[in-house]
Amino acid sequence: MAGCPAAPLLVNVGASLLGFAATLTLIPAFRDHFLAARLYGEDLNKASRRPIPEAQGMISGAVFLIILFCFIPVPFLRCFVEERCAAFPHDEFVQLIGSLLAICCMIFLGFADDVLNLRWRHKLLLPTMASLPLLMVYFTNFGNTTIVVPKPFRVFLGMHLDLGDYQDDHIFSLYIMIPFFFTTLGLFYHNWYPSQVFVGDTFCYFAGMTFAVVGILGHFSKTMLLFFIPQVLNFLYSLPQLFHIIPCPRHRLPRLNTTTGKLEMSYSKFKTKSLSTLGTYILKVVKILHIVDVKSGMDEDGEYSECNNMTLINFVIKLIGPTHERNLTLLLLLIQVLGSMVAFSVRYQLVRLFYDV
Amino acid sequence: MAGCPAAPLLVNVGASLLGFAATLTLIPAFRDHFLAARLYGEDLNKASRRPIPEAQGMISGAVFLIILFCFIPVPFLRCFVEERCAAFPHDEFVQLIGSLLAICCMIFLGFADDVLNLRWRHKLLLPTMASLPLLMVYFTNFGNTTIVVPKPFRVFLGMHLDLGDYQDDHIFSLYIMIPFFFTTLGLFYHNWYPSQVFVGDTFCYFAGMTFAVVGILGHFSKTMLLFFIPQVLNFLYSLPQLFHIIPCPRHRLPRLNTTTGKLEMSYSKFKTKSLSTLGTYILKVVKILHIVDVKSGMDEDGEYSECNNMTLINFVIKLIGPTHERNLTLLLLLIQVLGSMVAFSVRYQLVRLFYDV
Repeated sequence: MAGCPAAPLLVNVGASLLGFAATLTLIPAFRDHFLAARLYGEDLNKASRRPIPEAQGMISGAVFLIILFCFIPVPFLRCFVEERCAAFPHDEFVQLIGSLLAICCMIFLGFADDVLNLRWRHKLLLPTMASLPLLMVYFTNFGNTTIVVPKPFRVFLGMHLDLGDYQDDHIFSLYIMIPFFFTTLGLFYHNWYPSQVFVGDTFCYFAGMTFAVVGILGHFSKTMLLFFIPQVLNFLYSLPQLFHIIPCPRHRLPRLNTTTGKLEMSYSKFKTKSLSTLGTYILKVVKILHIVDVKSGMDEDGEYSECNNMTLINFVIKLIGPTHERNLTLLLLLIQVLGSMVAFSVRYQLVRLFYDV
Repeated sequence: MAGCPAAPLLVNVGASLLGFAATLTLIPAFRDHFLAARLYGEDLNKASRRPIPEAQGMISGAVFLIILFCFIPVPFLRCFVEERCAAFPHDEFVQLIGSLLAICCMIFLGFADDVLNLRWRHKLLLPTMASLPLLMVYFTNFGNTTIVVPKPFRVFLGMHLDLGDYQDDHIFSLYIMIPFFFTTLGLFYHNWYPSQVFVGDTFCYFAGMTFAVVGILGHFSKTMLLFFIPQVLNFLYSLPQLFHIIPCPRHRLPRLNTTTGKLEMSYSKFKTKSLSTLGTYILKVVKILHIVDVKSGMDEDGEYSECNNMTLINFVIKLIGPTHERNLTLLLLLIQVLGSMVAFSVRYQLVRLFYDV
């Protein structure tokens, strides 16, 4: 994808804008199809319990695929029309096709999960399979920019020299991320408070694989991980419940107080004696550190303990007190933005230690 | 994929046999998931109306994808291990990845159709989109085996000379068709009379795209069409109903006579006057040709006509009379085998006209 990338990028942005409009229109248009297929859920944080269509990431995902299927020839048009290619760049082409294969497979799997409620073992097996073609693409394209240095120069340059070409990697990322951004924006519009639709497992799988594809094939997987600081913190905070050391209920989202209309922390309640030694120890530590709200008491069954469910959302409520859903959503978005700013500064401060920039 | 293809083919057969076992096992294992998701239908040709899981092509399709995801590196191992490749054959690699993208997209679409009952316009739009990457792969690999003949030799050889390499095309086809055959065999076992499962739109889309991929990238799309003689005849016979010149009910499959336990032709019944001039004319012609059973009569609403639904299955029943479903299924399979034999003979007789073989 060497040469001037402006024209393909403009086409990509244009197609993505159309994709935004398409997602925005198709989600309400398909509402009845999803309700008829019983793909809906209730919003547990609302007083009214009307059905909300689920798995809507399937629509933004399908639009994303259509945009990119139409876009595939665009970066290579110069090879057909102007014959400016020495040879067709199959390695760049396979990178695009391989990415779409992994993403398409993941949208299919996510949708299957939403419909069929797969078990954990399938959820682990299939994404692993779906990333195999991606790894194969990675390994076959790996070293394309690396040359072996001729012997007389090895003293100065080392054994290998990476000619690099980071511009190409970033352009490839943009080809994928621009349509992803705009189709997700269309979904976000309908998912914004108060949610008209839910994104479903489909969107989570789709988004996860899209970030993975871009991070891996764009050669900045470590940088990308930095942008997931809130998610990593949430994962670490959740570990005691994920491994069932502390009992974990099915839903851990905050609880609506119907009197105040505000969201409060949700709790996991269990018999104190039922907890393992490790569980008791962890509960003691997090109580001392004030990062989890722990209470105990007596009821008809004897002594019980309860602690807030260990998610970042509950932790935020623990810090600021009961909050209206609209404000909480905004605050969580702000945390994501701050996290990304930290990621950028870490990324560019660390770079300064090794290079002159 | 030049060189000895025996080893990759053996791996492919081995993986496909595992895939057969997996499909065979997974279909009953997922039965409850499909029933809980309300993905089931009734067998209209049975007296008992117990729920039969639908869309099971999704399982054989997923197994097919897993087999091929694991298989992808195999034909290229010589490039990694023995370093016998001058350069990595990206064009062959992209052919495999592109095929899987088109097939994966189609399985996703088929499953979405089974779940959401899509409209005709979506059914037409999305497969077109899914075949775009395939066409792109076709065009970029097209002419790889063709060279331009140097001027002095053009008198003898013409402008272009196709170096060919048909072995490669056939090996590529086998890589795709062997896993398809074995996963479908697993599905067929459960779908065989009396059906425990239905294959759904998912399988039809999946199978259609698999044949298309192999036909197009294997460069024998015209030969492949010959193997679809029964389907082409069925399509031609159906045209008056497909274009709604003759009224077309939702289901056109034969009707079970619960007294005899045999299948009889199903009929489309309508007011004689409601038919267009073209419809009346067509009905007259097919009656004279004895290819459709046409009756008329009077009921409380006035004069009515009825004709058998125009499908190959009804036509077979018209020829041989009411038949038990088990025998009818066998007979239809026999017709498919005969059609394929005709296809082979046509293919090899026509070739004799142009080449010495």
